[in-house]
Amino acid sequence: MLRMSTLLLRTLRDDPADAEVASHRLLVRAGYVRRVAAGIYSWLPLGYRTYRNVEKVVREEMDNAGFQEVHFPALLPRDPYESTNRWTEYGPDLFRLKDRKGNDYLLGPTHEEMFTLMVKGEFSSYKDLPLSIYQIQTKYRDEPRPRSGIIRGREFVMKDSYSFDIDDAGLEASYQRHREAYIKTFNRLGLKFNIVSAMSGAMGGSKSEEFLAPCPTGEDTYVLCEKCGYAANVEAMVTKVEAYAGEVPPAFEIFDSPNTPTIDSLVELVNSKFGISITGGDTLKNVLLMADGKAISVLVPGDREVDLKRVGANLAGVQDLRLFEDEDFAKYPGLVKGYVGPQDSAKLGITVYADPRIVIGSHWITGANERDKHARYVTHGRDFEVTAFVEAAEVKAGDPCPTCQTPVVIDRAIEIGHIFQLGRKYAQALGLTVLDQNGKAQVVTMGSYGIGVSRAVAAIAEQSHDEIGLIWPREIAPAEIHVVAAGKDETIFTFAQELSEQLEAKGLSVLLDDRKDASPGVKFKDAELIGIPYIVIVGKSLQEGKIEFRVRSLGSKVEFATDDAVAEILAAINN
Amino acid sequence: MLRMSTLLLRTLRDDPADAEVASHRLLVRAGYVRRVAAGIYSWLPLGYRTYRNVEKVVREEMDNAGFQEVHFPALLPRDPYESTNRWTEYGPDLFRLKDRKGNDYLLGPTHEEMFTLMVKGEFSSYKDLPLSIYQIQTKYRDEPRPRSGIIRGREFVMKDSYSFDIDDAGLEASYQRHREAYIKTFNRLGLKFNIVSAMSGAMGGSKSEEFLAPCPTGEDTYVLCEKCGYAANVEAMVTKVEAYAGEVPPAFEIFDSPNTPTIDSLVELVNSKFGISITGGDTLKNVLLMADGKAISVLVPGDREVDLKRVGANLAGVQDLRLFEDEDFAKYPGLVKGYVGPQDSAKLGITVYADPRIVIGSHWITGANERDKHARYVTHGRDFEVTAFVEAAEVKAGDPCPTCQTPVVIDRAIEIGHIFQLGRKYAQALGLTVLDQNGKAQVVTMGSYGIGVSRAVAAIAEQSHDEIGLIWPREIAPAEIHVVAAGKDETIFTFAQELSEQLEAKGLSVLLDDRKDASPGVKFKDAELIGIPYIVIVGKSLQEGKIEFRVRSLGSKVEFATDDAVAEILAAINN
Repeated sequence: MLRMSTLLLRTLRDDPADAEVASHRLLVRAGYVRRVAAGIYSWLPLGYRTYRNVEKVVREEMDNAGFQEVHFPALLPRDPYESTNRWTEYGPDLFRLKDRKGNDYLLGPTHEEMFTLMVKGEFSSYKDLPLSIYQIQTKYRDEPRPRSGIIRGREFVMKDSYSFDIDDAGLEASYQRHREAYIKTFNRLGLKFNIVSAMSGAMGGSKSEEFLAPCPTGEDTYVLCEKCGYAANVEAMVTKVEAYAGEVPPAFEIFDSPNTPTIDSLVELVNSKFGISITGGDTLKNVLLMADGKAISVLVPGDREVDLKRVGANLAGVQDLRLFEDEDFAKYPGLVKGYVGPQDSAKLGITVYADPRIVIGSHWITGANERDKHARYVTHGRDFEVTAFVEAAEVKAGDPCPTCQTPVVIDRAIEIGHIFQLGRKYAQALGLTVLDQNGKAQVVTMGSYGIGVSRAVAAIAEQSHDEIGLIWPREIAPAEIHVVAAGKDETIFTFAQELSEQLEAKGLSVLLDDRKDASPGVKFKDAELIGIPYIVIVGKSLQEGKIEFRVRSLGSKVEFATDDAVAEILAAINN
Repeated sequence: MLRMSTLLLRTLRDDPADAEVASHRLLVRAGYVRRVAAGIYSWLPLGYRTYRNVEKVVREEMDNAGFQEVHFPALLPRDPYESTNRWTEYGPDLFRLKDRKGNDYLLGPTHEEMFTLMVKGEFSSYKDLPLSIYQIQTKYRDEPRPRSGIIRGREFVMKDSYSFDIDDAGLEASYQRHREAYIKTFNRLGLKFNIVSAMSGAMGGSKSEEFLAPCPTGEDTYVLCEKCGYAANVEAMVTKVEAYAGEVPPAFEIFDSPNTPTIDSLVELVNSKFGISITGGDTLKNVLLMADGKAISVLVPGDREVDLKRVGANLAGVQDLRLFEDEDFAKYPGLVKGYVGPQDSAKLGITVYADPRIVIGSHWITGANERDKHARYVTHGRDFEVTAFVEAAEVKAGDPCPTCQTPVVIDRAIEIGHIFQLGRKYAQALGLTVLDQNGKAQVVTMGSYGIGVSRAVAAIAEQSHDEIGLIWPREIAPAEIHVVAAGKDETIFTFAQELSEQLEAKGLSVLLDDRKDASPGVKFKDAELIGIPYIVIVGKSLQEGKIEFRVRSLGSKVEFATDDAVAEILAAINN
């Protein structure tokens, strides 16, 4: 039994100065976590019990799915991460250090390499597969902007799993088993979530989905179709377009367009010059980028911005993507800044990509590659070609759902899980092969699956709180019942103590507020802040043979007779 | 249920090349751990289950004792460790690193500072004390010679507790509560151990005891009296001496002693010159040391060596202790190397300490502070004085027990726990005070208590194995029963499977060897190596309605009728 009189806990009346989101604010105020350094937190007793309850659910669901638990060190030698080039690729996000002999080590941000090498060390035959193994372990990432308390920390706990299969069908089956285990896990944790198509990004690999817990202060933005349920993160949102069905345009025509630094000013000039009424969406933006040191041009309709994250996620293999700077323009004197059109890009050595909206046959008003001049009727397939279509334009609320055309909404969320089909990248780099039925060595194909365990504590808090405090689901709460001895009478304390013992004897976990120097008002406020789901008040009405039972999430209060208290409480919480 | 057919496990027939001790050899061969780098290991599924069982026992006993669990990061900022000077004092044992902003961090080797600051942040009154809090957490020490597998690693798991009290009596009570909790913990873990007086060494503080698990390959040497149970580590062994009861010696007398570079040659010369029969123990060695840059002389009987670790542990506050080198002698021209006696040390500015055996009134043959000359009848209290007695001479088997005079034995062991009274050092350095009954600020006094959780797995293995494999206590084993399907017949596999399910339904954990491609001989060998305490063989005798039940620790075999198998097995393991 936990007792408030001895618990290492001091609740705070005021919000911490650095807390931007509700979970951070409340977890600090209710005495669950304390900041040690930027993105680095300690758990106080209530917090660690909550954390361990989350960890227990995650572990049980992984075990139920038949995944085997292993455990790796966090302090890792450089070599395996050198083999996959991640020692370098991770950049400043990786904590690196040297040991007393000057050897290079890192603090593991994720363990693909180590799991691959473990399986390579033990297994050698297709008969050993499929295999799924996991660990629940402390991870390190030197985030540029650690924030939101334990949501984005630099030291945090992840459950990371890896699957190993001989072929793609096996990987797909392993992926589905993880997907199902994740659904069960997050349901048990009481989290509302969407499963969202994602790009696998820096990890390589193909199929990938994120589990996102919707929350207004979440860092992740994603697209949701409220009609058909389509969900994708912004990078992965697909643009569905129709083939060009208009007339074949006249030959392209250059016109003077001085003083048109913006799309709006260009539209105004065109409409007044030609007596027509186009919009920004009829013009074509040529956004020049450097992709790993190579000049590219990305075409989007003039009423959309380029989303660099979308371009980066959709341009396979590109590591470093940035906008053109003045010195880049200097290297391509044929480019007239502000008047670039795709007509001459190939000649200038610039690879052109287009947003899917720039369909073949469509014509546009765009730069004429001469100072103070634009061109109209510039037609895709006739006047310019593109190397490939790439999802490039920013996604907007109201864009059509790619499956049902309904206007989508854009929502915010916390990423709580991520599953993806890694493929053979790590097995190839580290030489993980097994012999197949014919005795031939086959490179193993892998999946990688993560749950933010410490983050889940905050995600639950984000989704389950009100203005006065936390509201934990029963399985996650640091205790199931909060018994408050509210009054000065010794009989109140005695009864509260006995009731708590009886409840614990029934297998329930109890936090007993047995403080003698705190007023009932302070105790009620603390109980609401701490957020244990059921609160029992032993107070003045004890004289009349009654106690009060509150459900934190409902704000409800009922009285039970003291004689039936245990049975009534059990009935109330188990129905 | 664990199944050998899918378990991530490959047992090894050969010992790993780098394994010096049994636990290391067997934990690697049986597929419990794998080396990642020097002193850094991964846990495979069987190993991690075993580790988690140990962790569970430790946690339950800490909770039973009323200690509260918290959790700190491993990645810690420099500041708190600067306040206590441990950032520097730890030297190369500390893993240090910088974050992306160039700030200094360390990987926590132990968490006194952080616990002190946590309590300072939450508590402020004597009413909040006593408090005992603990964590089970990964620790980092850059050991100069990591060895013996997980016994002395660079990344390892410790349970560390800290107690906080207002006064010395409170600290003593908290210390005793931890001592009792440790005894219960190690008993449950099935470890044989001695509680050994220890010096608190670099940690500061006063009373200190170690829990040592005897084991012939252990790194720790300690003194044990097999009669009265007195036990101390070598640094803490106390020399009991009697007052000098001999005659008052004649005045001291200088004699020529050329060519006596050793104690033996000096003894020979003295005996032949004076026609007497002394031994090395009648001569006095003056060992010159530099203690934090200050010259000191330590006197021990000529038949004993100085033990620098004993001197260091017993000379309060000394950080750096080393033997005199030639350049030190050069600074003290009055010291005649090889002929030093304590008679002139004070004059030369050298502080003299004596082993307790150099009792007041005793007389010695020692150097005369002149080349080629010694002196006899040099008497303590008459011809020289010492600043203090200090335990300086090496301890030998057969030395008298300080409590009952019985000759002691010197034994080897693994340190599995350490408890000590830290006192006010950390609270003082970090400003942890509480208000007492009179409203006056008092510095809190602390205790610090550690259990090597990952190391305990190896310590149990060291104490519980034979030449063919591991032998786990039931509560620690990765499973309680190992069911072996030994044969080719499908009925054998079916029965083994059903029996395993029935045993699991009774609440037992089972490892089922259901491999189709392994012979019975291979399966028996693996079962012996893996060391699950009870082994059930479902084999040829199944035809006759029998299975075999083996107790790994006894090597015993009995047959049970298949009809009664579950009941018989339950009876056998629970009696």
